[in-house]
Amino acid sequence: MSKTIAILAPGAMGSAVARRLSENGARVLTSLKGRSEVTLKRAADAGMVGAEDDAIAESDIILSIVPPGEAEALAERLAALIVKCAKKPVVVDCNAVNVDTVRRIEEIIGSAQAPFVDGGIIGFPPQPGGKSPAFYVSGEHAKSVAVLKDFGLDVRIVDGPVGAASALKMSYAGIVKGLAGIGSAMVVAATKAGAAEALRNELALSQPSILARLEIALPDMLPKAYRWVAEMREISGFLGPDHPASQIYEGFARWFEHLAEDVEGEAADAELIKAFAADAAKAKI
Amino acid sequence: MSKTIAILAPGAMGSAVARRLSENGARVLTSLKGRSEVTLKRAADAGMVGAEDDAIAESDIILSIVPPGEAEALAERLAALIVKCAKKPVVVDCNAVNVDTVRRIEEIIGSAQAPFVDGGIIGFPPQPGGKSPAFYVSGEHAKSVAVLKDFGLDVRIVDGPVGAASALKMSYAGIVKGLAGIGSAMVVAATKAGAAEALRNELALSQPSILARLEIALPDMLPKAYRWVAEMREISGFLGPDHPASQIYEGFARWFEHLAEDVEGEAADAELIKAFAADAAKAKI
Repeated sequence: MSKTIAILAPGAMGSAVARRLSENGARVLTSLKGRSEVTLKRAADAGMVGAEDDAIAESDIILSIVPPGEAEALAERLAALIVKCAKKPVVVDCNAVNVDTVRRIEEIIGSAQAPFVDGGIIGFPPQPGGKSPAFYVSGEHAKSVAVLKDFGLDVRIVDGPVGAASALKMSYAGIVKGLAGIGSAMVVAATKAGAAEALRNELALSQPSILARLEIALPDMLPKAYRWVAEMREISGFLGPDHPASQIYEGFARWFEHLAEDVEGEAADAELIKAFAADAAKAKI
Repeated sequence: MSKTIAILAPGAMGSAVARRLSENGARVLTSLKGRSEVTLKRAADAGMVGAEDDAIAESDIILSIVPPGEAEALAERLAALIVKCAKKPVVVDCNAVNVDTVRRIEEIIGSAQAPFVDGGIIGFPPQPGGKSPAFYVSGEHAKSVAVLKDFGLDVRIVDGPVGAASALKMSYAGIVKGLAGIGSAMVVAATKAGAAEALRNELALSQPSILARLEIALPDMLPKAYRWVAEMREISGFLGPDHPASQIYEGFARWFEHLAEDVEGEAADAELIKAFAADAAKAKI
């Protein structure tokens, strides 16, 4: 059965997901009002159809895929559209937001009487012919998103209420992206103190799997560091302001902010990080 | 050739190292003034000989193995003893202290005209018949410690000045102990949000080596968390107070402090951490 899916916004992840869905026969709508030429082209390449707000509100499923700081404002906008519809779409928040935020979004969408699903995406945007990232979903309406499996998405239902899928996303990112954070900070400091080679050798001997992970994760992290700043703040919020570990994630936000500025500027630390990863890869040959 | 090694203090690591040296024919001295019955017994079991300060100052090598916060005070005490000796012992700071601290200790020992070596121990205390942890040493006198290889210690010379061995120790601990920090914080938060099983399953699929590491590292960390508090503060100091990543390690100090209190108290978070690790181990069978 054909489905109409709206995806907001047509960013890197949103348009890659749209392409996967449209290649598998779904009609994919998005909002293109006031968007740049680059975005218009990306959306068209992904098979997305520009649509008015009314048409978006009448979709079967709406996927919210935006930077974490924009998730709540988008929910407000969607609720205002949906409240007027007779037939309500299922709204899925797929963003890297914390549990409190997603519960607020649930209330916002609920105020428009639409079924709401908590979602969390783990993995890279789907490449043509490649595998889908995992779309974790939770909440009482989670099953109504399972239909997206038929359109090429790897949908996985988390047995739990709204908040469970976001908690999974937060805790997974807190470990995997956190490891890139501590790894990059320590590699830069060790290199500046003349201990990079000794660190690489000791990790190769006693923690080879951590070294292998850093070799991939460190260069992969650098161009994304700017996006991880807000995500680390969400993880700090996931723990809560008085939690004894929240300062760790405030610290990661500050470190990734520094790295993002470094990457855009003289790339001094970025070069040390790349050199460590490259030398670790060479040492294995 | 027989050697006289002094080890201060006869703690868990110090006495295990002493046992290894004495079993291999070294004479191992320590200071037992004012120590508890437990310590006297541990020292005797390890083949350590209680000695007066004068005899300790006349050893061939003095190993300082104390909690990081005591390293500088011990150096002051040793310098006061050594300054009077004609033949100076080689003094090795083996502690988990940062580069600035070890440079201050170098100055203190240098004021007594004794050769100084920077050291860092990576690994567990040697068990009878088991392997030695790695004793990394750096600085111009590092080679004079290589003789300890003949007495069963795994001495590794880091090519670099005083500070390089400590930088290695700090950066290695910053990665390996930091991973236990983020892993434990996220496991507790995910469990409380009902996402522990989903987190374990996703890690098993996409990051199996990180999950395998957490399975071992998390239960191992709990009884040591109280000791890691000071070490995390040393790592923060290694980065420097204005460093954009130092807050991460201040955060780890606070988190390990919380876990240490939890372990001593109702062990609420400790039980969640143990359960996650145990279930991860079970899932593999």
